[in-house]
Amino acid sequence: MKQSILSLFDIQYPIVQAGMAGGPATPELAAAVSNAGGLGTLGAGYMKPADLQAAIKTIRETTDKPYAVNLFLPEEFMEDRVQTEKMQALLAPFRSSLGMDKATGKKEHQSTFQEQLQCVLDAQVPIVSFTFNAPSDELVDLLKGHGVRIMATATSVKEAQKLEALGIDAISAQGSEAGGHRGTFIGEAEDALIGTMALIPLLTDAVSVPVIAAGGIMDGRGIAAAMALGASGVQLGTAFLASAESGAHPLHKDAVLHAKETDLRLTKAFSGKMARGINNDFMKQMAAVEDLPPYPILNAMTSEIRKKAASEGKRELMSLWAGQGAPLAESRPAREIMKRLLKEYNEVISQMKPF
Amino acid sequence: MKQSILSLFDIQYPIVQAGMAGGPATPELAAAVSNAGGLGTLGAGYMKPADLQAAIKTIRETTDKPYAVNLFLPEEFMEDRVQTEKMQALLAPFRSSLGMDKATGKKEHQSTFQEQLQCVLDAQVPIVSFTFNAPSDELVDLLKGHGVRIMATATSVKEAQKLEALGIDAISAQGSEAGGHRGTFIGEAEDALIGTMALIPLLTDAVSVPVIAAGGIMDGRGIAAAMALGASGVQLGTAFLASAESGAHPLHKDAVLHAKETDLRLTKAFSGKMARGINNDFMKQMAAVEDLPPYPILNAMTSEIRKKAASEGKRELMSLWAGQGAPLAESRPAREIMKRLLKEYNEVISQMKPF
Repeated sequence: MKQSILSLFDIQYPIVQAGMAGGPATPELAAAVSNAGGLGTLGAGYMKPADLQAAIKTIRETTDKPYAVNLFLPEEFMEDRVQTEKMQALLAPFRSSLGMDKATGKKEHQSTFQEQLQCVLDAQVPIVSFTFNAPSDELVDLLKGHGVRIMATATSVKEAQKLEALGIDAISAQGSEAGGHRGTFIGEAEDALIGTMALIPLLTDAVSVPVIAAGGIMDGRGIAAAMALGASGVQLGTAFLASAESGAHPLHKDAVLHAKETDLRLTKAFSGKMARGINNDFMKQMAAVEDLPPYPILNAMTSEIRKKAASEGKRELMSLWAGQGAPLAESRPAREIMKRLLKEYNEVISQMKPF
Repeated sequence: MKQSILSLFDIQYPIVQAGMAGGPATPELAAAVSNAGGLGTLGAGYMKPADLQAAIKTIRETTDKPYAVNLFLPEEFMEDRVQTEKMQALLAPFRSSLGMDKATGKKEHQSTFQEQLQCVLDAQVPIVSFTFNAPSDELVDLLKGHGVRIMATATSVKEAQKLEALGIDAISAQGSEAGGHRGTFIGEAEDALIGTMALIPLLTDAVSVPVIAAGGIMDGRGIAAAMALGASGVQLGTAFLASAESGAHPLHKDAVLHAKETDLRLTKAFSGKMARGINNDFMKQMAAVEDLPPYPILNAMTSEIRKKAASEGKRELMSLWAGQGAPLAESRPAREIMKRLLKEYNEVISQMKPF
């Protein structure tokens, strides 16, 4: 019998809002979900320390409930100058279409992780969730020493087992349906695109810590399904992506609300790391490019382009991350979405009959 | 409210055994599943008329319960001689490694469909399931005129809506987890790899006919999950692939029983049509080849190689189709697997509690 995530995280319902980085998972969204009895998460992956501090302050002013902060664990990477220059040449037409100068070569990568971590410890954040890697033993010890609960993302049995061995409190199991970046950190992301229906039973059997199902879960039906598969809870991102409190760009929200399930494609073209989003011109034009710089180099290279495109309202050059359940997304306030999820879940399970 | 598939197919439990063609879905397996209260399916996709007749006879001698026959609907295709010859050159090393002569160029494609259909009508098969295409209006009328119930595979909302408009009785929704060939017939298979968790709610909302969930469902947990998502029933292939009655090659069964979830890869290299199977040397060596002849041309070209490899016990050149749930497969008789599924399902739903 696995530990309940209700007691682990001190929450009322086993519903986690995913820490969608880069805008969507605002402090307002996290607070709204936590206030509704779930676990709200701040998407702090790309946040600078001062912004992270301010965001945590906003959450604490808006809720006295537990919340999580999601961080990207640094990965090792090598820069290949020739590869980077080739990519700058490929990106040049996109830049000039937006009236941007040649790339300066100025880049910021992952130097901020240690500072983000210090903010989290200073602010006594109760729960931290990680993706893109397994934390080091030292990092786990440090957080546990501060009484912080740790969640981390796995996309395969092997990854889940590694996280359990490190002492992680709960595993977020990311099925292939999920939007945004893949969390694969052992082997290739291409080989760990396991659908949620197959992944959850395999992971719950393989580890004794709670498994939180993510990927394709959009409503009470999905929550009931995940719980039936053995999950201890669910993590929903796309379901909150177009919510009132989400910080996603209006064009991003609009794209999510009008997406077809076959529009949700995998690409490495924006960041060098595989991610799922709504297909657009940038993804189509870059689809044939094989020799991509790795994450986070390519991410930094396209970041300016995406920001400029967003400010000019050009969705064809924006990264419109979303999962395969996008057609079921809604634009309501998060509190109402939470209410609907709970009501639907209870209806679904009340209608299930034995054979 | 959708029609129950229990009344539609006159079965006791909404569990369909998938019509795995090319060996696994034998008449013995179909009869065992039907006798246990599910819907057994004969995998007749590649069967010659005489073999199909004999197989149906075996089923009818072994069960008086309803059963289904799965057929491949013909597709249009063009042969490009230069492409075919290039592929024969690429396949030559595999042939010679098996001591086979140069390819004769003798090929059999889809000429048998009309004969298969005639067998099915003559034998008064109660249920026919189709994949790889939508049937024509005429074919639907013909089958309905004979009182045959029709199931067909969809991998997207658009396909499901097309099948419903044609008057299909029930839709088999093939999630990306599924083993074997993808049933996509509108657009590219690459773009319709929707995980079961996302696909089932979308399809059940989009059509009024019953939706049968397929892909990643291996046990009572998966069945309960699919029913929670709104499915009217489930279709399991890989769960029966290593069963005693399955006609899969012993090496295929062994590979399924020892597979890791990350071994289940997508490939077009065996048949020209995307399919999921256990990664092996053939798939690895052909992975970089881009200009593949279409299905069924490539399927016919590799067929002899796979047969010879199977007869010589060389699994690295066999097509080891299976779904992402393979690690949960069992080698028991189908009747025991059915019993376990029912017991587990009832346990799972009895443990589900409201929030």
